Amino acid sequence: MTGQNADCAPDSGPREECGIVGVYGSSNAADLAYLGLYALQHRGQESAGIVASDGRSIQSKKGLGLLSEAISPFELDDLPGHVAVGHVRYSTTGSGRVQNIQPLVIEYSGGIVAVAHNGNLTNARCLRQAYEARGSIFQTSTDSEVFVHLLADPQHANAQDPLRHALNAVKGAYALIILQADRLTAVRDPYGFRPLVLGRRADGYVVASESCALDLLEAELVREVEPGEIIRIGPEGLRSISLGRAPRHARCVFEYLYFARPDSVVFGEVVHNVRLRLGAALARTWPVEADSVIAIPDSGNSAALGYARESGIPFDIGFVRNHYVGRTFITPAEEKRVSSVKIKLNVIRDAVRGKRLVVVDDSIVRGTTCRERIANLRRAGAREIHLRISAPPITHPCYYGIDFQHADELIAASKSVEDIRDFLGVDSLGYQTIEGMVESVAGDGDGYCLACFAGDYPVMAEQGIGKHALESSR
Amino acid sequence: MTGQNADCAPDSGPREECGIVGVYGSSNAADLAYLGLYALQHRGQESAGIVASDGRSIQSKKGLGLLSEAISPFELDDLPGHVAVGHVRYSTTGSGRVQNIQPLVIEYSGGIVAVAHNGNLTNARCLRQAYEARGSIFQTSTDSEVFVHLLADPQHANAQDPLRHALNAVKGAYALIILQADRLTAVRDPYGFRPLVLGRRADGYVVASESCALDLLEAELVREVEPGEIIRIGPEGLRSISLGRAPRHARCVFEYLYFARPDSVVFGEVVHNVRLRLGAALARTWPVEADSVIAIPDSGNSAALGYARESGIPFDIGFVRNHYVGRTFITPAEEKRVSSVKIKLNVIRDAVRGKRLVVVDDSIVRGTTCRERIANLRRAGAREIHLRISAPPITHPCYYGIDFQHADELIAASKSVEDIRDFLGVDSLGYQTIEGMVESVAGDGDGYCLACFAGDYPVMAEQGIGKHALESSR
Amino acid sequence: MTGQNADCAPDSGPREECGIVGVYGSSNAADLAYLGLYALQHRGQESAGIVASDGRSIQSKKGLGLLSEAISPFELDDLPGHVAVGHVRYSTTGSGRVQNIQPLVIEYSGGIVAVAHNGNLTNARCLRQAYEARGSIFQTSTDSEVFVHLLADPQHANAQDPLRHALNAVKGAYALIILQADRLTAVRDPYGFRPLVLGRRADGYVVASESCALDLLEAELVREVEPGEIIRIGPEGLRSISLGRAPRHARCVFEYLYFARPDSVVFGEVVHNVRLRLGAALARTWPVEADSVIAIPDSGNSAALGYARESGIPFDIGFVRNHYVGRTFITPAEEKRVSSVKIKLNVIRDAVRGKRLVVVDDSIVRGTTCRERIANLRRAGAREIHLRISAPPITHPCYYGIDFQHADELIAASKSVEDIRDFLGVDSLGYQTIEGMVESVAGDGDGYCLACFAGDYPVMAEQGIGKHALESSR
Amino acid sequence: MTGQNADCAPDSGPREECGIVGVYGSSNAADLAYLGLYALQHRGQESAGIVASDGRSIQSKKGLGLLSEAISPFELDDLPGHVAVGHVRYSTTGSGRVQNIQPLVIEYSGGIVAVAHNGNLTNARCLRQAYEARGSIFQTSTDSEVFVHLLADPQHANAQDPLRHALNAVKGAYALIILQADRLTAVRDPYGFRPLVLGRRADGYVVASESCALDLLEAELVREVEPGEIIRIGPEGLRSISLGRAPRHARCVFEYLYFARPDSVVFGEVVHNVRLRLGAALARTWPVEADSVIAIPDSGNSAALGYARESGIPFDIGFVRNHYVGRTFITPAEEKRVSSVKIKLNVIRDAVRGKRLVVVDDSIVRGTTCRERIANLRRAGAREIHLRISAPPITHPCYYGIDFQHADELIAASKSVEDIRDFLGVDSLGYQTIEGMVESVAGDGDGYCLACFAGDYPVMAEQGIGKHALESSR
Repeated sequence: MTGQNADCAPDSGPREECGIVGVYGSSNAADLAYLGLYALQHRGQESAGIVASDGRSIQSKKGLGLLSEAISPFELDDLPGHVAVGHVRYSTTGSGRVQNIQPLVIEYSGGIVAVAHNGNLTNARCLRQAYEARGSIFQTSTDSEVFVHLLADPQHANAQDPLRHALNAVKGAYALIILQADRLTAVRDPYGFRPLVLGRRADGYVVASESCALDLLEAELVREVEPGEIIRIGPEGLRSISLGRAPRHARCVFEYLYFARPDSVVFGEVVHNVRLRLGAALARTWPVEADSVIAIPDSGNSAALGYARESGIPFDIGFVRNHYVGRTFITPAEEKRVSSVKIKLNVIRDAVRGKRLVVVDDSIVRGTTCRERIANLRRAGAREIHLRISAPPITHPCYYGIDFQHADELIAASKSVEDIRDFLGVDSLGYQTIEGMVESVAGDGDGYCLACFAGDYPVMAEQGIGKHALESSR
Repeated sequence: MTGQNADCAPDSGPREECGIVGVYGSSNAADLAYLGLYALQHRGQESAGIVASDGRSIQSKKGLGLLSEAISPFELDDLPGHVAVGHVRYSTTGSGRVQNIQPLVIEYSGGIVAVAHNGNLTNARCLRQAYEARGSIFQTSTDSEVFVHLLADPQHANAQDPLRHALNAVKGAYALIILQADRLTAVRDPYGFRPLVLGRRADGYVVASESCALDLLEAELVREVEPGEIIRIGPEGLRSISLGRAPRHARCVFEYLYFARPDSVVFGEVVHNVRLRLGAALARTWPVEADSVIAIPDSGNSAALGYARESGIPFDIGFVRNHYVGRTFITPAEEKRVSSVKIKLNVIRDAVRGKRLVVVDDSIVRGTTCRERIANLRRAGAREIHLRISAPPITHPCYYGIDFQHADELIAASKSVEDIRDFLGVDSLGYQTIEGMVESVAGDGDGYCLACFAGDYPVMAEQGIGKHALESSR
Repeated sequence: MTGQNADCAPDSGPREECGIVGVYGSSNAADLAYLGLYALQHRGQESAGIVASDGRSIQSKKGLGLLSEAISPFELDDLPGHVAVGHVRYSTTGSGRVQNIQPLVIEYSGGIVAVAHNGNLTNARCLRQAYEARGSIFQTSTDSEVFVHLLADPQHANAQDPLRHALNAVKGAYALIILQADRLTAVRDPYGFRPLVLGRRADGYVVASESCALDLLEAELVREVEPGEIIRIGPEGLRSISLGRAPRHARCVFEYLYFARPDSVVFGEVVHNVRLRLGAALARTWPVEADSVIAIPDSGNSAALGYARESGIPFDIGFVRNHYVGRTFITPAEEKRVSSVKIKLNVIRDAVRGKRLVVVDDSIVRGTTCRERIANLRRAGAREIHLRISAPPITHPCYYGIDFQHADELIAASKSVEDIRDFLGVDSLGYQTIEGMVESVAGDGDGYCLACFAGDYPVMAEQGIGKHALESSR
Repeated sequence: MTGQNADCAPDSGPREECGIVGVYGSSNAADLAYLGLYALQHRGQESAGIVASDGRSIQSKKGLGLLSEAISPFELDDLPGHVAVGHVRYSTTGSGRVQNIQPLVIEYSGGIVAVAHNGNLTNARCLRQAYEARGSIFQTSTDSEVFVHLLADPQHANAQDPLRHALNAVKGAYALIILQADRLTAVRDPYGFRPLVLGRRADGYVVASESCALDLLEAELVREVEPGEIIRIGPEGLRSISLGRAPRHARCVFEYLYFARPDSVVFGEVVHNVRLRLGAALARTWPVEADSVIAIPDSGNSAALGYARESGIPFDIGFVRNHYVGRTFITPAEEKRVSSVKIKLNVIRDAVRGKRLVVVDDSIVRGTTCRERIANLRRAGAREIHLRISAPPITHPCYYGIDFQHADELIAASKSVEDIRDFLGVDSLGYQTIEGMVESVAGDGDGYCLACFAGDYPVMAEQGIGKHALESSR
């Protein structure tokens, strides 16, 4: 545990995108949570867990891998009750420890509680050290474990509203769903980094990271859980409490760019629509003469269509995705002469050969995968390649839940656009401007976190950042 | 075995679409076959098998499920050698017996032979009965097993060219890849029902159902294996022999409509291009005033784009596919209140609400899935729905390898287009005309099998058809 | 397939000890077959299979490993019917191909048939070559597959009694259970090499390799299936037919020495009793002054007790067996510094230290395991070790189903008793005499196969023996 | 969590017999721990875990089931280092939660620590409630988790010797092995309830529940870890510290009767020898005229032999154990007409029929299994059955780690010996006397816990006992 000697500064645990869902009031709440996690599977493929309560006893099932691998539908019979919370976690490397699978289930003076967390705390290490100094023990390497220690801390547990009291100690990004015996609580941090929506069914309530989960559960979308809002759902109905106000809102714009499904409503807007506008803005900023516009599927599809519509250049399909190459793909040959990039996306030669192409992708992190795809287009005979990126250059790490935490992972942190163009081997490279992005998102474009593009962090983070800081020593 | 007493007429074994690949000359032939099957996985998800030879000994690995489930890449070390053949099989119900997994490997007087077959024989039952009468035993319920009995039959085995001699006894659809100690043989039946392409690598040859497998193996597409051609590859190089000529060619047009990947070259043409033309033909035949054209993904994508281009109506994305709901999806709730149709494709509400939509799908078999999707569009607020189908009405069963074998499975066999329109609940329904289809496919439109649309079967089938005829009694 | 060019002489497939069970008349025949295989698990741990029939359709389940690994009890619901046959197969190396798992299920002109075989044919290669010459194909590398080809052969199939006719062509050792739609047939070869008993339940019949399976199924032991007897059980009841007489009987004496469970009745006698007598005979032949008699568990237990009783030397427990180290044990350390011999049996030091021990074991094949156990006794402080072996020296290979097929696997084939004593490091070594063995077995001691001790083979075998002859090339 | 409202009195978590092993100094410590757990597998089949340290980082592997199921030998490569601790846990019902698998690994202010515990604390609930009141969270339902909270508690953590200080707060039975970065600590509670031995290898030290683990690791038995002793092993060597003295010693006599392997040295004596003496004492106390003495295998074997020797009645083998029916056995038939008792032990009829038998078993808890075995002997024709029990009547629950915690689970708590004799259906029933037991064990018979026979509890337990007290609400 290298962190022990570090001074109490920025840090923290694994930063991951996750999906969470909570159900209250349905006789088979765990079944619905399972369906909800199916809809949110794109937000995390490393592990899945569901905890359910029938008001008296609390049961849980967890496992590694995709939902269908982690939990068999047949096991849902072991999760009776009308309250349930589920969690899927992002696969970064395929590692991932069993202990880290959420929802976390612990017992403390207040009883048994299950916590599902999406986001990343910026003072997790600091809090963890404080608790360890007081004699607490930690069993996971996730920053989410801090929440349960806060809840159990007598200074909070004995407060009038323990949860609200405890959350005041926490900094950073969190969308939380908390299950207790006969209660479901949903919380969004005051900045509103991560999304969370509230839905209503005939027999109760649903909360979820994205509205696509509501669609599948036949729940009507009511509204976002507001930044800084605590929603408590219990036998007495639904109650909303304010957790406090942040200086500003800071919704994560990457939800629109990459994470969320295009059919989801996030931050009050259908993602597909935002992406169409992002593509159109690119077309206005970076026009070019070309034969067709193609997308890097699937996240680039909507923006490519937006570019095509705005520019009048015909939209075409340039890549075919192999739907069967998933998380588990391992290249057979040791030499790995055939790259997984090529296995996942194959070029449609006739759509590419001899063509001047506009290629639309959502963002560039390291640039290596993108370069390989461009090379495949070249090999297939593309005459000109004009790459258009829905996001501005990513120049700063994210401390709020996205898995790029070091500037040296970011090609745009050290290279000029011209150098990146050379690196990728494209004829022209047009990044979204921050203005173009702001005008494309929901609302008046205010209230978004642009830290990874502009460096203006809404909440300061501890030092000593490193994704596996806590894991490295175990 | 109900078939025993049936007179020697039409029949036959399980009819399935499959994918086959063969590799000759690479030091790690099984690795390449594995990659090739990855590319062909869309042609069969029920089981997978690979057989390899180092010239002396022959080894095999087989299993149920997707390739990655059936065979671990780590097992490929157990398949050494420079000759390999692989097979993936279509999942219809999820059943599927272990014995039926191909390639079949048997031993006979000529040594050990492995056979991978795509297609469906029309005189399989007849041949099987004849062999059983002579004392032969059968271990699978597939019609493919007939091939190995023919090869072993002394009347063929002692002929100058045993394979050629044996194949003269066979009727129906077959693309075959046969592995022997130091030899790979590829055959296509004289009608050319099922596709098979020949590719060349620096170190040898590859044959595969579709060219997308060649792309992944970095093999150059040489040409189709011709209908009625036997290609033998061995230490002495490649040799082509004619198996005989059929009265006509009868390439399966469903390869263009549905089976093949859009990036593949099949029957000499890129599938994406054919689908664009099929969509354009639909637009000319069935024009309509509308706000946008959307596809049923993924097989409808190219044709929808073709319709949009020809009609000038904007192309849009109306459905989002859940990539994680695969073969293994099981609805948790017993009541299955949430249909798998909805889990697989979710509607993007804003792309649909209040819109007059042209919806393009590849074909209609029973119509039940289509009806559910249309209902989901209606629920999402579509104002008008104009359904356009790339294929003409399917009115006749297929005896050559596609899994609709009874007229009562085919809605168009008994209902008028008007009745189907009512059943589906669309505002208008436009099927492709046979002329539209013929003008869209490769070449002069001649040499295709249109039996399922027009009833003119190129090869007569035995009676007593039934997909599980052979399986039912085991 | 090396065998192809061999002249038609001695051979044959994998030689294994197996366990078989058949049930007729119980509503849940497969459940009973499962229990029966549990009782016979000691006869084979490599694979297990059960085939059941409800009179119309035939279903099967097969798998590698122990019964509980190969077939889940939950799968038994998929095996309905009142007729069932089961098979467990001996694990030699842990390899074992899926295709070889019995019962074999095939279809031929007579319908579907399942065959479970214990024993080893001595003219299997010859028959196989003959069938291959006539065009038959083979899918396994087992000699048992020959049976199904014989059954399907028109020269037999059209005979009045096809099975009886077919079996006349077979030489060697076989206990067979054959399942057809509504029929169970049990056969024992005319020499009676391998055991098979007939039991009766209130609702029908059971046949099994050993009577311990009958005990578990609450079936009453009726009698042995006689050498050269065919027992047919069907709706009309039980019928016995003679297959023919052999010049002599040749029951395998190793069933008494090692294979069978001590609680089983085999060849008309309780195995425990025979082993007690074998021990007593040893005590008379090889008396010695000692402090205690210990067994190599478990097969040596009864004989050690017999030795102790006869000699008056106290019986003691010298080794403890680790019940959890089974088929799946793998030494963790690459170096394998800790031998599996030691893990399986640990010495009770106080029972050994400073003692003059008589150690009783069932037999010595290679001698290497025995030597290691003796060394462990020495390390534990044994003062004298007098090894007594229930079997005479094994000097000749077995062609009838036991897995020592080459003289060079047999220490007694090349070494004198004195040399073996030196090799093992014991103070004295006393083998059973042939006379001692003959007087200990059931009946008048006549009618047993003593070929491995004396070389007088009741049935001549083909040449070119080798356990993996057929497997080597696949 | 029912316990919350209980007053701070007797209690506690699941009481289980477990096996623990620790290794210090070997380059592949985890490999040795794995072997050690193999030898201790009889002490726990529910789950297994190993934690290893190379002095800097700590890695762990855990799983449900037998060792070979829980941890693959191939995974041991992921556990590098020269320090390791392993744990196997007893299977009671087959349930068992993943979180409860030991060794527990947690992080606290002092770093990372892994704890393996055998035994049962009598004030666990009390301590747990105190910690929860201070804000601590609990993740398991085991009493062992209390240890890690104590270690992390600043009042102990800041003491001069934190572990010693912390253990003063603990009451009850514990043998502990604690792993830290470069240190292994072994502790036995001052009463010495549970066994723990110290061994020495050329390259370091081993501690284990029983000496049979030392044998396999080729470690020399040095001595018992003394009651109330802390042994610390680190780079500086081995150091012994006294934890304090108890008013008396209270070694668990059930280790001799049932738990330990006969080849182990426990509490300074070979178990086999103690059992021989227990049998002899039974023969003196309860002589009877009979034809033979048989054991209920395997735990009754040595005592039966002791009875036979003392009485002069011949020892015989009456039951055969099915080695393949393990933890995973599930009766196939729903009706479960065949009892698992019968599947596990089958009677050797000839050893029983018409005989007057002395049957020796280790102990009687509920009596139901014993009754079934007696009935099987009767059915096999036993003429007289004289049951002799190595243990005295168990009349009181155990609070120190054995899984009989309620008087109503104990037949002898409510029934007279005469009534038990009737219930079991034996001709005579002779229990060991307490005197007989005391004279048979090691040493002068002093220093043993006889609470379950006599009710004189060395350490008072909390109230509200119940094995699943903590689990029931989760």
